[in-house]
Amino acid sequence: MLIVFLLSALYSSPPGQVASGSTDRQPKNSLAERLGYPPDAKLLIIHADDLGMAHSVNSASVKALETGLVNSASIMVPCPWFAEIAAYARTHPEADFGLHLTLTSEWKFYRWGPVLSKDRVTTLLDRDGYLHPTEVQAAARIDLREVEAEIRAQIARAREFGLLPTHLDSHMGTLYQNRGLFETLLRVGRDNRLPVMISREWFDRAQYLPSLLRPDDIVIDRVISIEPNVPPERWEEFYIGAIKSLKPGITQIIVHLAYDDEEMRAATIEHPDWGAGWRQRDFDLFTGEKIRQLLRENNIKLITWREIGKIIAKSER
Amino acid sequence: MLIVFLLSALYSSPPGQVASGSTDRQPKNSLAERLGYPPDAKLLIIHADDLGMAHSVNSASVKALETGLVNSASIMVPCPWFAEIAAYARTHPEADFGLHLTLTSEWKFYRWGPVLSKDRVTTLLDRDGYLHPTEVQAAARIDLREVEAEIRAQIARAREFGLLPTHLDSHMGTLYQNRGLFETLLRVGRDNRLPVMISREWFDRAQYLPSLLRPDDIVIDRVISIEPNVPPERWEEFYIGAIKSLKPGITQIIVHLAYDDEEMRAATIEHPDWGAGWRQRDFDLFTGEKIRQLLRENNIKLITWREIGKIIAKSER
Repeated sequence: MLIVFLLSALYSSPPGQVASGSTDRQPKNSLAERLGYPPDAKLLIIHADDLGMAHSVNSASVKALETGLVNSASIMVPCPWFAEIAAYARTHPEADFGLHLTLTSEWKFYRWGPVLSKDRVTTLLDRDGYLHPTEVQAAARIDLREVEAEIRAQIARAREFGLLPTHLDSHMGTLYQNRGLFETLLRVGRDNRLPVMISREWFDRAQYLPSLLRPDDIVIDRVISIEPNVPPERWEEFYIGAIKSLKPGITQIIVHLAYDDEEMRAATIEHPDWGAGWRQRDFDLFTGEKIRQLLRENNIKLITWREIGKIIAKSER
Repeated sequence: MLIVFLLSALYSSPPGQVASGSTDRQPKNSLAERLGYPPDAKLLIIHADDLGMAHSVNSASVKALETGLVNSASIMVPCPWFAEIAAYARTHPEADFGLHLTLTSEWKFYRWGPVLSKDRVTTLLDRDGYLHPTEVQAAARIDLREVEAEIRAQIARAREFGLLPTHLDSHMGTLYQNRGLFETLLRVGRDNRLPVMISREWFDRAQYLPSLLRPDDIVIDRVISIEPNVPPERWEEFYIGAIKSLKPGITQIIVHLAYDDEEMRAATIEHPDWGAGWRQRDFDLFTGEKIRQLLRENNIKLITWREIGKIIAKSER
């Protein structure tokens, strides 16, 4: 889960004007063009979040990835089921797995802590010794040096498990919550030559985003993620509408996949938003035929973060 | 899971003679008599292990406890689902919950670490930063001071979560593996005024057990736990035989309860011993009517660790 949390944070920021020069800091050609596509190409990443969080999430996400429609995902290294998805990643090196850098542990009865020794990241912990339950609490309390150490440790641990991430993003949007956190995320992404998920659409709501970017940073055009205001019976309509009205450029649709099973219902207890039913609905739609057909009819091409990341490799030459 | 690991460790110890004076260190009256029962009473604890380990374990164990036949259980504090069973314990203060002190993380794809900061208990960790996968590896590598700090931290955390344990035992028998570990367990039990699960039957296989005991330590008469050499079709026969031939004194039957569901099958993957099917078989038998009827027919009385623990309170007067 990412976008609602992020947007609520961005909305609650002072509505800063985008510095007029900020877009000039980006290359003249669009990211799509730099990737070799015509400027009017509709390019789409269908991205599953939260892998590693639970067995149900891993199992449903892997099944969806194997249908080929969901074509990218990101993994939560501190979570109890990380070893399961890391093993899958090792035997599927072609899969487009990024890291869903994790600074929160949001569920009531199912919790996790940091990768680093707790003594070294005390500001990352709630009073029970787990990661903070919300991105707002986390952002308010965490020390940036501890954040940087922890997210570098998550990347290092992923690599120790044989996982070579193609991109970085942030669970519940914690690392986009303020300038300092975003600067930390960007620095770690650059140091690791990994694209960070950033959407140009967010710029007019949070001035620190464009102001920190350099010309060679990757920025996609938009991110779509279903929100709690969509009732279950409108689920399909929401996604169909999003795909039919897709604009040229690079869009990421974020989905949250799991089965509506005992494990997932217990893990997300008292939290229908991003809950077990939500994730089953996403799974059903993104493993079915309808979305796939709509992509064909609307001339939408799927791309991955691996493909996008090649720009970073090229720019180093 | 406890007993096979423990017995294999005890068998592999040099077959020491029990020091002839060692039983004299115990009170003349049996534990049953000290509890106010006649010396020929057949007293039984039906004890579920591994609570907190997974949602499936919590869910099945709670259901079995609520039937009243399974009447005691112990909880793994470092595990991801600890918060769920701790919440149940807070609202069911009458339940007989002990702590299943945990120094191992034995499954392939589902792992946990210590309660304490990793820097403080480095000998407790495997190379991936989780607890060691087996009790043998753990016993060979862990520093006793770190063990003591960690198990005291597990008790402290349980209390912070509102859980008042009635007894202590050790996941996979790690704390019974050698003299130093057992001494540590005993010291922590005594300091916390909590009975430690110790069976008199083990004495002739590991001399350090009786040699470390003081007259006021609690010792039950025997522990029964089904082992991997029992095929599934003989499951019921094993337990029926155990109950029909139950001797006077205090016996604990250890069961491992969970549902044979997706979560549990994935958690115990490639490990049928103590696996999902095993736990479902235990659940089915210990929530059914047959065992309950056998207890009545054989004049067997259920007792709890809470009841046994009262002896410690009395001895302090």
